[in-house]
Amino acid sequence: MKKTISVLVENQAGVLNRITSLFSRRAFNIESLAVGVTDDPTLSRITIIVDSGNNMVDQVEKQLNKLVEVIKVRTLDEGNMIGRELMLIKVSAGIRTRENIMTICRVMGAKVTDMTPTTMTLEISDTPARVDDFETMMRSFNIMEVARTGMIALQKGPGKM
Amino acid sequence: MKKTISVLVENQAGVLNRITSLFSRRAFNIESLAVGVTDDPTLSRITIIVDSGNNMVDQVEKQLNKLVEVIKVRTLDEGNMIGRELMLIKVSAGIRTRENIMTICRVMGAKVTDMTPTTMTLEISDTPARVDDFETMMRSFNIMEVARTGMIALQKGPGKM
Repeated sequence: MKKTISVLVENQAGVLNRITSLFSRRAFNIESLAVGVTDDPTLSRITIIVDSGNNMVDQVEKQLNKLVEVIKVRTLDEGNMIGRELMLIKVSAGIRTRENIMTICRVMGAKVTDMTPTTMTLEISDTPARVDDFETMMRSFNIMEVARTGMIALQKGPGKM
Repeated sequence: MKKTISVLVENQAGVLNRITSLFSRRAFNIESLAVGVTDDPTLSRITIIVDSGNNMVDQVEKQLNKLVEVIKVRTLDEGNMIGRELMLIKVSAGIRTRENIMTICRVMGAKVTDMTPTTMTLEISDTPARVDDFETMMRSFNIMEVARTGMIALQKGPGKM
């Protein structure tokens, strides 16, 4: 089962390492992880998705809370969150295929961020499932490179995490 | 000086931890880090931005290359890359301020992803500098929560990294 864990931490050297250690020691494979600054530059928010078949996530949550640099930990409920991911994808594109690619971009809300006579680089931000769908559509055009951010999430509604 | 390092790794438990350890041991503060799967599900791409005043980044690059799970390491040249970041931001928004917020969203290319009678949650993907600008514009409306992915990047042009 996939779990989304949102961790608010102090923005210091070594914090990320202490957090990934917690997961590594339990042999949890982190499926995606994104770290970015918040509106307070002394704090960062780390969003982690782990695939875990047991209730060890509760244990990890407790362990995270023990770290001094950790301000807040929250496991997000999938039905009550807004989760988004960003992907950059470079595909082969020539005169014959460009219009096909543009059609898919229009339908799925992707943007063209770079273009050469033989390639196009596209940008899409959406739910991870929709980003997967877009990547699947692009498989017809020879995918050259992909970079994805991993999902970030906020709670739906007026509340703060 | 800020450096963007792109690392292609095998998608295994513990890899991320070994990589963050390298930075942690040198007391490099990772400003942002994003991990996502690639089109090959056995591989992940990690994009790391470090702020470093010296040439220690070359050393880290060498150390990274020694890890067995690391397939490829590349330090990206800022003038020759496409770098994008995603932000979700929740702000206070009522009848009086909603239209102001929408105007800024239209100008800067942000989308509304959630709305309540007292809040709006907005989504923007752009260069980190433009995301900063959008966040600055939102400060007039009481920022409640922010999540950012950290930057991902691909090389401009037809080449592969």
